[in-house]
Amino acid sequence: MNSLVTMNDLTVEEIESILEDATKFKNGEKWEKEKKSYVANLFFEASTRTKSSFEMAEHRLGLQILSFDTGTSSVVKGETLYDTVKTLESIGVDAVVIRHGQDRYFDELSGVTIPILNGGDGCGNHPTQCLLDLLTIKEEFGKFEGLKVLIVGDITHSRVARSNAEALTKLGASVRFSGPPEWFKEEFSRYGEFIQLDEAVEDSDVIMLLRIQHERHKETASLTKEEYHEQFGLTVQREARMKQGSIIMHPAPVNRDVELANTLVEANRSRIFKQMENGVYVRMAVLKRALENRG
Amino acid sequence: MNSLVTMNDLTVEEIESILEDATKFKNGEKWEKEKKSYVANLFFEASTRTKSSFEMAEHRLGLQILSFDTGTSSVVKGETLYDTVKTLESIGVDAVVIRHGQDRYFDELSGVTIPILNGGDGCGNHPTQCLLDLLTIKEEFGKFEGLKVLIVGDITHSRVARSNAEALTKLGASVRFSGPPEWFKEEFSRYGEFIQLDEAVEDSDVIMLLRIQHERHKETASLTKEEYHEQFGLTVQREARMKQGSIIMHPAPVNRDVELANTLVEANRSRIFKQMENGVYVRMAVLKRALENRG
Amino acid sequence: MNSLVTMNDLTVEEIESILEDATKFKNGEKWEKEKKSYVANLFFEASTRTKSSFEMAEHRLGLQILSFDTGTSSVVKGETLYDTVKTLESIGVDAVVIRHGQDRYFDELSGVTIPILNGGDGCGNHPTQCLLDLLTIKEEFGKFEGLKVLIVGDITHSRVARSNAEALTKLGASVRFSGPPEWFKEEFSRYGEFIQLDEAVEDSDVIMLLRIQHERHKETASLTKEEYHEQFGLTVQREARMKQGSIIMHPAPVNRDVELANTLVEANRSRIFKQMENGVYVRMAVLKRALENRG
Repeated sequence: MNSLVTMNDLTVEEIESILEDATKFKNGEKWEKEKKSYVANLFFEASTRTKSSFEMAEHRLGLQILSFDTGTSSVVKGETLYDTVKTLESIGVDAVVIRHGQDRYFDELSGVTIPILNGGDGCGNHPTQCLLDLLTIKEEFGKFEGLKVLIVGDITHSRVARSNAEALTKLGASVRFSGPPEWFKEEFSRYGEFIQLDEAVEDSDVIMLLRIQHERHKETASLTKEEYHEQFGLTVQREARMKQGSIIMHPAPVNRDVELANTLVEANRSRIFKQMENGVYVRMAVLKRALENRG
Repeated sequence: MNSLVTMNDLTVEEIESILEDATKFKNGEKWEKEKKSYVANLFFEASTRTKSSFEMAEHRLGLQILSFDTGTSSVVKGETLYDTVKTLESIGVDAVVIRHGQDRYFDELSGVTIPILNGGDGCGNHPTQCLLDLLTIKEEFGKFEGLKVLIVGDITHSRVARSNAEALTKLGASVRFSGPPEWFKEEFSRYGEFIQLDEAVEDSDVIMLLRIQHERHKETASLTKEEYHEQFGLTVQREARMKQGSIIMHPAPVNRDVELANTLVEANRSRIFKQMENGVYVRMAVLKRALENRG
Repeated sequence: MNSLVTMNDLTVEEIESILEDATKFKNGEKWEKEKKSYVANLFFEASTRTKSSFEMAEHRLGLQILSFDTGTSSVVKGETLYDTVKTLESIGVDAVVIRHGQDRYFDELSGVTIPILNGGDGCGNHPTQCLLDLLTIKEEFGKFEGLKVLIVGDITHSRVARSNAEALTKLGASVRFSGPPEWFKEEFSRYGEFIQLDEAVEDSDVIMLLRIQHERHKETASLTKEEYHEQFGLTVQREARMKQGSIIMHPAPVNRDVELANTLVEANRSRIFKQMENGVYVRMAVLKRALENRG
């Protein structure tokens, strides 16, 4: 059973194999199960990109999608996540995609026998976001070795920061962090140093901005949006200093004029919409991996 | 790109061509894209008819439908409509259907390259409702020239009134308005005169009742439902005075015994459920128009 | 038109025929309409099992599913259920599945011409739950005659108790009831006697536990969960006294450690997940019955 709940589950070889499959799908390769297969998407937290992207990937693979509205499911009657997933397994669902507000929600699902694809857990992991970021970087530079990646912003609450830092380091890139110092946790030091944005802007190949998770913490109140943008955001002035060939990434949704100047969202060096496009192919690869060895 | 956001976008020839296509679909004609095509339905306001009808049309054309639940999308995180639609475009959606409470929400979507089909904007436009009304009238009378159409009720807040008045006038029908005088706006005078319901009941070919949009305005409080029905509704007594061959229309949902006597909803001359049926064919035609010239 | 709204609609022969069809579907038999058919699932109350199960059944039969989100439908504008269903009928839906909080909601739908499949009405009926229970019992024992079935718990508020008691009695099983005496209604005496749980645990072939409908009544406050479990729940101690070959059933979601000890949910004699699995096949049979004689 090929679940994917954290990037840690994957060896470097497996990551490379997923990226290769994603590239093949992007180039038009087809893959379809002979037997009708069923997937349910359980999004307990708001999502446009991840949910739509998984659904698009499922459609493209010819999978049958079971609708699941968390707000009108038996979860509102107090049913546990385990019982919900076990129910879906019982009625014949072949894989579930889950986004849930609780960190490592998947730990309580060990009794489940169908693959679980993590669409984001609390402040924990978001492996398909990481994979689509890797694919976007690889398409751009053809390699990870020696690349300088700067991750800026809400490191602590981001489920992208940790996965990306870990995977990029494993793949040979060097990672640095920036943003408000109180949002940097000591445990991230093992992946790379903390640095002032203005010092790192000129020699980074990738500036990866993280979304301020307004819905996750209230303690940002100390800075206005304008102050955040001025001190820790990618302003038009900072972008002008970025090195040739370097790119801007953001998992979106962007808080325009906060993490990133409004006019830069669709700038030449922005790969934000490219990241979304790549998300579909990465998820096709991950779904294929989950389903290909099932009866 | 063949968006459809207002009836103004369409020439008389284009309206006629859409109605012809709709009639062909009604007679069983098939049309299918060779390439799998994807549509997302974004309904930010409550809807049964328009949403289900678009979805049925999409199913009949063999389109793939991406589910989109506005309540659990990133819109709740403050994402703009532009970024939401741009996201869907990035992941490969070929067209979007949108209903939104804001008048002319589509003005901010000019940077989008996929077609937008307007399923209703605020108190503004509802072009597919207009087209299905036109199809229903054309089926009944075979023409528009010389027909007398009476539009009754909440002219100001209706997104049907303006589109219909404009289109019917262009097509050669003559339009009059009735209902509470305070709900008639001077700008409608260019399409036709305001007249007392009792004066117009006998010589109108079509009596088109508008739904009181309880959810849009509170200022109706001056009249009880019974009083409204008595003064401005199509009562059983008034219906008895309607001319032979004339029909009753209503975009639904009907407030029974307010705009229309309960027993008249399924009366012989009511075309209310016929309108709904025709909605599917009109939307098939509009979707075909939007998609047929895309890669 | 083959609606299914209560078990009373079905003769013994019809029940047997549905169970046979369900078994055939379980054994891999296919059935598909030549003409594309459309189904809408209208769930006005929370559901995971029933909704997902119907949807899975529809997918397996190759039916087209029209999404229907009750929270964003025109029902929120005050549209009646009748007008909603009539709308779906008008746009070409071939059958509707409905769960609704109002007892016998279907009585107001007599003017509808498409089949209605009841997915649960208030404290009234839940025929497909009954049928899947019957299938599970039949698979286990090969017959109903002479079986002793004990129904335990919230008899009054359960929409399963009445249907099951009635159907099982008709089919030759003998039924008894247990649980808090205040939750037993005199009218159930015609199906079987009320008995203390500890007296019936040893000689019952089937112990069917009912879910405490916390969302339906507040008056359970007199007992804590622990007290309920001790007095009226299937504890580990009671299960140890169950006769050989006997089984545990529960419509789920289970309140773990209330109706049933947590560890017994997946015990050897539990058929809870088997019931869910069987639900899909029973619903395929019921959908086939509803659709096979339609144009």
